[in-house]
Amino acid sequence: MAHIDLETKILNKNDEGAVANRALLDEKGVYMVNVLASPGSGKTSTIVATINALRDKYNIAVIEGDIASSVDAEKIKAQGIAAVQINTGGACHLESAMIKRAIDVLDLERLDLIIVENVGNLVCPTDFDLGENAKVMILSVPEGDDKPLKYPGVFQVSEAVILNKVDTMPVFNFNQEAFEESVNQLNPQAPIFPLSATTGEGLEAWTSWLAERIRKA
Amino acid sequence: MAHIDLETKILNKNDEGAVANRALLDEKGVYMVNVLASPGSGKTSTIVATINALRDKYNIAVIEGDIASSVDAEKIKAQGIAAVQINTGGACHLESAMIKRAIDVLDLERLDLIIVENVGNLVCPTDFDLGENAKVMILSVPEGDDKPLKYPGVFQVSEAVILNKVDTMPVFNFNQEAFEESVNQLNPQAPIFPLSATTGEGLEAWTSWLAERIRKA
Repeated sequence: MAHIDLETKILNKNDEGAVANRALLDEKGVYMVNVLASPGSGKTSTIVATINALRDKYNIAVIEGDIASSVDAEKIKAQGIAAVQINTGGACHLESAMIKRAIDVLDLERLDLIIVENVGNLVCPTDFDLGENAKVMILSVPEGDDKPLKYPGVFQVSEAVILNKVDTMPVFNFNQEAFEESVNQLNPQAPIFPLSATTGEGLEAWTSWLAERIRKA
Repeated sequence: MAHIDLETKILNKNDEGAVANRALLDEKGVYMVNVLASPGSGKTSTIVATINALRDKYNIAVIEGDIASSVDAEKIKAQGIAAVQINTGGACHLESAMIKRAIDVLDLERLDLIIVENVGNLVCPTDFDLGENAKVMILSVPEGDDKPLKYPGVFQVSEAVILNKVDTMPVFNFNQEAFEESVNQLNPQAPIFPLSATTGEGLEAWTSWLAERIRKA
């Protein structure tokens, strides 16, 4: 199975890079979180809301992964926050070597937190260690409560699960209890943070969880 | 670049299988549509609504691609429609060999239309020809109007673009004009069908477009 063998080889090379990234960030005391989600689940809005909640206490930078465009990096820069855009040129996930190049242009001595926004994809980024301290995933209410059954991998690798757009709950037929039960079965340790990046509802529980981890880095 | 070389090789093998699938379906007069979208954009609901609009005139079967679970195939079977579930076991897209195995269990002599629901992913399925007559993509309003800029590939390969969940337009800040302009720039030939699979609004334009193609198959 040539496909599998090559996949293993790519992953090993990626893992080596991830180990190096992690060692460098550890040394500099920078916490890095890798945000995974589908297109349109509100990754950028959640990152902007997180920045606004934490920017008084911590120095933050963002690494934006996209197949094309720099729409998201521009949104972050508009907040006065350092942002590095990575265009993967078609690739469906970020890899540790791309993160290395982005880290190299950031002032690590000054930073407390790097937020990586991965390519919008619930599948492929799951397998790639970037050297982050934690993967965190976002699912949004319009996507539906059955997603843990259909995309179990991303729920299993995430240290925390954000349920975004809870303000749209009345419009969608979303069973939050069933969703939380499925997530708990796949990943009993992961806290679930229902929130709305737009209204700010529920944001504090998530940013407190993150802040606690930044302090330990 | 070993990665690229292997990717080319996998694609070639996939393309050979796609050619064979297409020849078989042509011979049997079956039209096959490959539906691409993110998780939670309403692929299954749109397929169910499409079936209900066309089932009196055409014999339809569905091939469901999912990483795990058979949730979607069960929803289709509950409509009294033949459904074959493919579990990719982690893979982020369907390939022509998987479709071949699914086609082999369907009664092609009887069928007019096969709808393939690809894995929820706006990136990887774009590159894989399954032997379909047309790729059709769905974007849903909650995902945001900037998606053509960020995921251009899927908009470029699609014969038609469905904009789903238009009934939720009042809840989301979605600029339909800007969206349609971006789509037209990437793919001037593709019609855009704004609809709501839930309310049925706008469905007829899409199902008429599809029915016209089934008749020619």
